[in-house]
Amino acid sequence: MATPLPMRGLWLQDRVLTFRDQLPRPVPGPGEALVRVRLAGVCGTDLELRRGYYPYCGIPGHEFVGEVVGGDATALLGRRVVGEINRPCGHCETCRAGRPSHCDHRAVLGLRGGQGAFAEYLCLPEGQLHPVPGDLPDQLAVFAEPLAAALQIQTQLQVRPTDRVLVVGAGRLGQLIAQTLALTGCGLAAVARHPRQRQLLAERGIALLEEDGVPARHFDVVVEASGAPAGFALARRAVRPRGTLVLKSTYRGEPAVDLSALVVDEITLVGSRCGSLAAALRLLERRAVCPEGLIEASYPLELGLEAFERAAQPGVLKVLLQP
Amino acid sequence: MATPLPMRGLWLQDRVLTFRDQLPRPVPGPGEALVRVRLAGVCGTDLELRRGYYPYCGIPGHEFVGEVVGGDATALLGRRVVGEINRPCGHCETCRAGRPSHCDHRAVLGLRGGQGAFAEYLCLPEGQLHPVPGDLPDQLAVFAEPLAAALQIQTQLQVRPTDRVLVVGAGRLGQLIAQTLALTGCGLAAVARHPRQRQLLAERGIALLEEDGVPARHFDVVVEASGAPAGFALARRAVRPRGTLVLKSTYRGEPAVDLSALVVDEITLVGSRCGSLAAALRLLERRAVCPEGLIEASYPLELGLEAFERAAQPGVLKVLLQP
Repeated sequence: MATPLPMRGLWLQDRVLTFRDQLPRPVPGPGEALVRVRLAGVCGTDLELRRGYYPYCGIPGHEFVGEVVGGDATALLGRRVVGEINRPCGHCETCRAGRPSHCDHRAVLGLRGGQGAFAEYLCLPEGQLHPVPGDLPDQLAVFAEPLAAALQIQTQLQVRPTDRVLVVGAGRLGQLIAQTLALTGCGLAAVARHPRQRQLLAERGIALLEEDGVPARHFDVVVEASGAPAGFALARRAVRPRGTLVLKSTYRGEPAVDLSALVVDEITLVGSRCGSLAAALRLLERRAVCPEGLIEASYPLELGLEAFERAAQPGVLKVLLQP
Repeated sequence: MATPLPMRGLWLQDRVLTFRDQLPRPVPGPGEALVRVRLAGVCGTDLELRRGYYPYCGIPGHEFVGEVVGGDATALLGRRVVGEINRPCGHCETCRAGRPSHCDHRAVLGLRGGQGAFAEYLCLPEGQLHPVPGDLPDQLAVFAEPLAAALQIQTQLQVRPTDRVLVVGAGRLGQLIAQTLALTGCGLAAVARHPRQRQLLAERGIALLEEDGVPARHFDVVVEASGAPAGFALARRAVRPRGTLVLKSTYRGEPAVDLSALVVDEITLVGSRCGSLAAALRLLERRAVCPEGLIEASYPLELGLEAFERAAQPGVLKVLLQP
């Protein structure tokens, strides 16, 4: 067996992130494409992973746009692509029931058993790749994965043009959620802590509320995207009886939940995670969602640690990595 | 003003329940009917009320069948009726939005600002009364209110004939929930602790599962009707990713909820309370639901304390009070 070619990339092990220039370049298996990463995004989950949210050893990163440069994906050779992050087994009951992103045996790009995007190359099955429309810049296409996560809300529940909707938390994901919800025509407001977050929302015509100015028991749908217990408490207060509270973030400190009050108020709580890349690409192609303003900085892989530090600062939006 | 006529009834004050034979008989206001209570049911909420779940001073009881004997409800005079327990203001935004049972200003029969059914007489607005079909015995009609609460599940979510559904807890409400869910044709199983509960379910052809035999991450819909933290934990384990967990009970000890896991598994949590009395009466009239087997005992009002003691014993199903 030939010695694998080297590549540059970030490596996470025991919560320590390092840059390495001699990582083995992955070799595509049957049905897999070799993808050269053109641009990757640092996500809140990557930061949590480094803090030990989940034991992962390997190359992190799951938001990317790349170019197919080899492997079995001949139809896509030379094309720019984004990729599904969940790699399901395809055989279990959950997969056969049409919920592959919940396969118990799944690998997840850069998160669980699947080497991620913060490197020069990655491998993914051809079926998990989506070609990027020709005129869509990398700087937009790299948002396909988090935008898909935002759109998952509307896969799970119907947001009506007549609904009163509140987004709590306007960070990386909250901004995309607010932009997609605004497309429904709903009565939308957001709570944002940081000036840049507020400015971006205001530019999109999204109403801003102060935390202590949020009316109680008022909103038909509230999306909690802060990932903070205080954000959850605010969101819970804001939702009306028989309304829906969508949870888009995992929590470090576990918020308190009064289940009895959920029963009395007949609240629906919806956990929401990954969504449709195809739908995200359509919205990006139509320029119906404009995430450019979220980009704070772009770093070369060699400065990956700086990129992580920057992304972890309060209020900072999207930080990109360019291999 | 004339001295009010006396009546017999139960009185709850500072968590102490007493029988009284000189309570003032209520006088119907404009638009209200005077109802002579024929039969009333003791509900878990009544027991909780006595334990101090909610500060209430007055006549408890909200499950009843009675006869209209006076007041403004001339069209219903002499008719047997059941009644809506929520008395909304009718003017606030919640009422106007069609959610009167969530009116912030509502009185609730026997629970909040509205004298209840554990007495000879009660008053309710005519619009809150539903006539009982002529051939429906009191012993069935008295179940209209808890049956409506069971049916609320299917007002809130679609239970498909192809769904795998689990009911955790088969007490007073759990039995009615299981019976109504069985009518959908879904693949239904229940967890029941007590022999009588198990027997009733088996008689209806509902599969029984042992607590340690409940498959994890398996059921499309799980209904938690035990009101116990252990029941919630079991229900949470049993629901599949992207499944729905319905909460039908308030809790004394607050169960722990891992919100992050709800997000990762994209679980929907639905709090569920009161439902449609009209629908409940239709099912009772068709004998599609058969609650007779739930009746454990019937006590005269004078023995109301004994009735409460009996209803509070583990595994005991419906205890009735006959004025």
